[in-house]
Amino acid sequence: WEKVKSAHDAWSGWVCVLLVGVAAGLCAGIIDIGATWMSDLKEGICAEAFWLNREQCCWSVSKVDIDDEYCLQWKTWSEMFGGSRSGAGSYVVTYFLYMVWAILFALLAALFVRVFAPYACGSGIPEIKTILSGFIIRGYLGKWTLLTKSVGMMLAVSAGLSLGKEGPFVHVASCCGNIFSYLFPKYGTNEAKKREILSAASAAGVSVAFGAPIGGVLFSLEEVSYYFPLKTLWRSFFCALAAAFVLRSINPFGNDHLVMFYVEYNEPWYIQELIPFVLIGVLGGLYGSFFIKANIAWCRYRKNSRLGNYPIIEVLVVTFVTALLSYPNQYTRLNTSELIKMLVGRCGPEDDTDLCDYKRNYSSHQMNETYLKSMTSSTVIGDGVYKALWMLALALVFKGIITIFTFGIKIPSGLFIPSMAVGAIMGRMIGIGVEQIVVANHDNPFFENMCESKQFCRITPGLYAMVGAAAALGGVTRMTVSLVVIMFELTGGLQYIVPLMVASMTSKWVGDALGKEGIYDAHIQLNGYPYLDSKEEFTHTTLASDVMRPRCARYGSAVRNDPPLSVITQDSMTVEEVEHVMKSTSHNGFPVIVSRESQYLVGFVLRRDLNLAISNALKLQDGIVYNSIVYFTNHVTENPNDPAPLKLRKIIDMAPVTITDQTPMEMVVEMFRKLGLRQTLVTHKGRLLGILTKKDVLRHIAHLENQDPESILFN
Amino acid sequence: WEKVKSAHDAWSGWVCVLLVGVAAGLCAGIIDIGATWMSDLKEGICAEAFWLNREQCCWSVSKVDIDDEYCLQWKTWSEMFGGSRSGAGSYVVTYFLYMVWAILFALLAALFVRVFAPYACGSGIPEIKTILSGFIIRGYLGKWTLLTKSVGMMLAVSAGLSLGKEGPFVHVASCCGNIFSYLFPKYGTNEAKKREILSAASAAGVSVAFGAPIGGVLFSLEEVSYYFPLKTLWRSFFCALAAAFVLRSINPFGNDHLVMFYVEYNEPWYIQELIPFVLIGVLGGLYGSFFIKANIAWCRYRKNSRLGNYPIIEVLVVTFVTALLSYPNQYTRLNTSELIKMLVGRCGPEDDTDLCDYKRNYSSHQMNETYLKSMTSSTVIGDGVYKALWMLALALVFKGIITIFTFGIKIPSGLFIPSMAVGAIMGRMIGIGVEQIVVANHDNPFFENMCESKQFCRITPGLYAMVGAAAALGGVTRMTVSLVVIMFELTGGLQYIVPLMVASMTSKWVGDALGKEGIYDAHIQLNGYPYLDSKEEFTHTTLASDVMRPRCARYGSAVRNDPPLSVITQDSMTVEEVEHVMKSTSHNGFPVIVSRESQYLVGFVLRRDLNLAISNALKLQDGIVYNSIVYFTNHVTENPNDPAPLKLRKIIDMAPVTITDQTPMEMVVEMFRKLGLRQTLVTHKGRLLGILTKKDVLRHIAHLENQDPESILFN
Repeated sequence: WEKVKSAHDAWSGWVCVLLVGVAAGLCAGIIDIGATWMSDLKEGICAEAFWLNREQCCWSVSKVDIDDEYCLQWKTWSEMFGGSRSGAGSYVVTYFLYMVWAILFALLAALFVRVFAPYACGSGIPEIKTILSGFIIRGYLGKWTLLTKSVGMMLAVSAGLSLGKEGPFVHVASCCGNIFSYLFPKYGTNEAKKREILSAASAAGVSVAFGAPIGGVLFSLEEVSYYFPLKTLWRSFFCALAAAFVLRSINPFGNDHLVMFYVEYNEPWYIQELIPFVLIGVLGGLYGSFFIKANIAWCRYRKNSRLGNYPIIEVLVVTFVTALLSYPNQYTRLNTSELIKMLVGRCGPEDDTDLCDYKRNYSSHQMNETYLKSMTSSTVIGDGVYKALWMLALALVFKGIITIFTFGIKIPSGLFIPSMAVGAIMGRMIGIGVEQIVVANHDNPFFENMCESKQFCRITPGLYAMVGAAAALGGVTRMTVSLVVIMFELTGGLQYIVPLMVASMTSKWVGDALGKEGIYDAHIQLNGYPYLDSKEEFTHTTLASDVMRPRCARYGSAVRNDPPLSVITQDSMTVEEVEHVMKSTSHNGFPVIVSRESQYLVGFVLRRDLNLAISNALKLQDGIVYNSIVYFTNHVTENPNDPAPLKLRKIIDMAPVTITDQTPMEMVVEMFRKLGLRQTLVTHKGRLLGILTKKDVLRHIAHLENQDPESILFN
Repeated sequence: WEKVKSAHDAWSGWVCVLLVGVAAGLCAGIIDIGATWMSDLKEGICAEAFWLNREQCCWSVSKVDIDDEYCLQWKTWSEMFGGSRSGAGSYVVTYFLYMVWAILFALLAALFVRVFAPYACGSGIPEIKTILSGFIIRGYLGKWTLLTKSVGMMLAVSAGLSLGKEGPFVHVASCCGNIFSYLFPKYGTNEAKKREILSAASAAGVSVAFGAPIGGVLFSLEEVSYYFPLKTLWRSFFCALAAAFVLRSINPFGNDHLVMFYVEYNEPWYIQELIPFVLIGVLGGLYGSFFIKANIAWCRYRKNSRLGNYPIIEVLVVTFVTALLSYPNQYTRLNTSELIKMLVGRCGPEDDTDLCDYKRNYSSHQMNETYLKSMTSSTVIGDGVYKALWMLALALVFKGIITIFTFGIKIPSGLFIPSMAVGAIMGRMIGIGVEQIVVANHDNPFFENMCESKQFCRITPGLYAMVGAAAALGGVTRMTVSLVVIMFELTGGLQYIVPLMVASMTSKWVGDALGKEGIYDAHIQLNGYPYLDSKEEFTHTTLASDVMRPRCARYGSAVRNDPPLSVITQDSMTVEEVEHVMKSTSHNGFPVIVSRESQYLVGFVLRRDLNLAISNALKLQDGIVYNSIVYFTNHVTENPNDPAPLKLRKIIDMAPVTITDQTPMEMVVEMFRKLGLRQTLVTHKGRLLGILTKKDVLRHIAHLENQDPESILFN
């Protein structure tokens, strides 16, 4: 039996992450299918089977028609209303209905969030980071949040807003993790253990968002998790892989590759190309900093002005503007993922879009190797590409600006895909520029190794788009290794690791030079969550005695008018006195000392436990009155004249973490980070001097960095 | 100026890891080139230019001849001595000279290690793990070790022993890391900071060993590093990538791919194949456990018997046996990496080796698609494959056994490549078996989806070899995520992540069921390094008071005859008394208390500091005699009758880490791990009760796991 129990104990973690992975994969599959169907609903409907999306609708009839954009079974709305497929009238009807559907979806999403689960808005990653650092936000990972976020995300994506599903997927997966952890008492009842499951769940979230299990684990490790226990690395990977496998089996997109933006090309890149890649990295970093500053400024304005009182109206306005401006431009009308996929792709022989309008000298009848080579190599661009470049420039400006206003409105919204889209557009444009420079100067010795002749220059603008996506995403989120790994899992381009790395590195450096924080940290600070960054080094030489409360006078530093420390003595206070201490302060716990005179530390007692114990004792225990002495010791001196004593030894934590007043703050910060402390007691030669909480540490750091410590609100 | 200084501070870490990466890449390149040349030297020499290895020698003449195994410029030794290239006499001469060279190389390697740097033997990974956990081994990462290990590794690999370069590469890279860190005071003078560089360096080591930068970072994270600070993740990746890039530029192997065992195929795998993959995983786990047990038993025997006194003779005997048995079998004669490359490969149309002798019905004149398809698909095997299977079986047994005796002899030796070779042989054999079962039952519904017809079954034995390599390596090292990532970076097979994961997972579970530790942890324990495993959970409910010394009598647990705690009082002991305390014990430091009566803790003083301060004071300070009182306080009561007091407040650490006696050991173990402590002081209500060192913790854990705590030696 012992063995069965220990086996159950050992396996419960694996079973739990398996369930979480499967659930995350299922949620992602359902959301993807729903979002695709509803997105298509904006433009038309499948006449014979309304529950099919456009691709399935056309596909169900004849396999040959898949490529054909206009299959007959798929009716646009103007056709449904008896109009024709093309013409100005039809365009206006379709445009109008597109906007109506978009606003309807957005309204529904905003209402859902408002009514069922206010926590379902935003990306959720800042909050999950805070939760994993040890802060508890009740209900943030509950089943209502899960449901609302899932449905709201489908609606928000379908509304065509400039937002992605990726951040919210992490939140959805974490909700699954939280819910399933209650099935296993080992994980459900222990916050630290539960955080292990949540770390694995967030890996699964990224894994299903991008089909990138390894990238997901690294994302969880680098960006989300506060303290990542190595023993859960393998479990996180298992969870991420299970999720990716389930999603792959559902196959919501109907394509063959596990990867999202599979690049089929295997072109080499040249060392000279590192120059434009660095340039792209710089631009990505600049965009990232600009985006963070602008978005935070706008969110702060929303918080502090009346705008914050009308979240639904804000959503509707943003949706209206987005729908109005994005429909006319074919690149913004497209689903953002499809846009990225198109931009990172290569122009093949069968492509006849504007973006691939190159002046080629070979006719398609010469179906031989030279022809194929010519069709995929770089050459002079035609008018179509000029037109495409203009449209892309407009799309870039539009996407870049609307995302600032979109991220933060009260519906589920992720940031990965819009950032990548902005970067990919920029990268593709630079790529085409570089391509034309090389083609025009193909006999320049500097470019010699890239070109065989004027017709055969080997520059791949799609690679630039890929690099640009990485650079912009890196600038916004300041991810590093996980970004590179996600990018190459996303595209399957293992050989492009150096370009991706160069761009994301430059982007991070440029971004960090302009402002230290990534978007998630900035939002954590904006919302005032008690989050102690585990990546920043603490390099100052202050001591614990400079930070603790009450501040010690004799060390000569600025003495504040701190109230004296609220303490409880172990065997000399009455119930009434204890209650008075509790009422006069709002601390979460109180140190217990031997006596007021000696101040030697005995332990620490939590307000919650103390409250409960006293009220229970007053109600249920005979003889306990307000005059009873509260004893925290084993040995109770009973005096027949006194009222019955209240023995509370059981609720006292006899092992509080203590430091001496001479401990350097560097060590204190490290202890807070690594041990996940909320407070520590400061002693001097065994005597209690003061207390040091996480908020004191955060205020101290803000003070040292010349920020106004009072500007950091802690809600 | 402030800005320049802060910029220098921020950049020095990047410059340092860049230098380390470049140096690691260079070392790896030199070692690879040297080892290739010397390996070829065993069989022959380039007649016209002796400094070229076989491939370069043949290649320098004519590009067409590369594939031809017998190019004229390359002379075997029997040719050099006037004999013929083939025939029994030539075979004997070549065989003999092969053995002579092998023994010569091994002798040189063993002598180098013995004379210059005894630390250069073995793989180095157990020691680096211990160093990264906070233990200092002087000279282990010095320049002599670097030089000796580099040269010794070339020689050892060339001797044809069953060992790899991969573990030693990690050691070499760490030596580079240690040496370069002294260029930057920020890193050279701070052990904790230096460990960050060492973590990055070990990532670079794996990166150059396998051309796997991401796998290297994960290996460093999962296997080597004790506490991996996330802020160095990006730097480690940079370091690993720089190293891989430098090695790629040197291009010691002359092939085009960054990856070592590039698999050119892109075959799908089928869900049914998971059954043989699980089987391979089980076998890999069994082999791993067997290998660890046998190797540790042999190493323990070496340690405790007279064998340990004759390291050079042992090396020579192992080399003799290896050379004697490996020459006749073509698979063991081959360089181990080449063997693995061959095994994970696919039989293409141009292969005419035994391993690819399939009965194909199409002649090579039908150079069309059907022919190509037939040449790469599975079919009935011919006699050549039967012969190859027998040879592979012999090679499997030989490699499996000789590696047990090789790992641990006193020359540089890694374990990755031999383990992978064993696994790859096993996997290939199982793969061929599965292939034949499927071909024979191609009309069985269970196999239906794998076969188009009898000629076109899509089973890739090379994939089984890859999975087998992962399983065996996983069984031996118990790596997890890093193993999967290394394997797919090594082979470029991103689509095989599920088979690799299934096999390595099964292998780890089977291995863990038979014995918890991987080979590196087993060697750490064998050598008795003070290493506190950071992955094992501490699940017992003991308290600090059960573990500390002196053991407290009043808690009723088994009281040992502990000597009383050696303490120093803050203002009442004379120099003589303090020296007596120091002489009567061998502790590294002593707690300082207020007085013997009150026992309140003041601080902690290190033996080294105390010794130095007292001897300096006795020599240089006037009036200090053996009767002087030692003061650790600010306030000194000077009495004109007494000798001058010795003030030692400066050397006392006023911020020792303390815990209370009621602290659960779970928390204590976590503090030791996460804060990298060596000891902590145990108090009760401010009074000093005892001390708890890392060794006490290790002994306690061993005791709880029913191991004999005294069997753990601490050298």
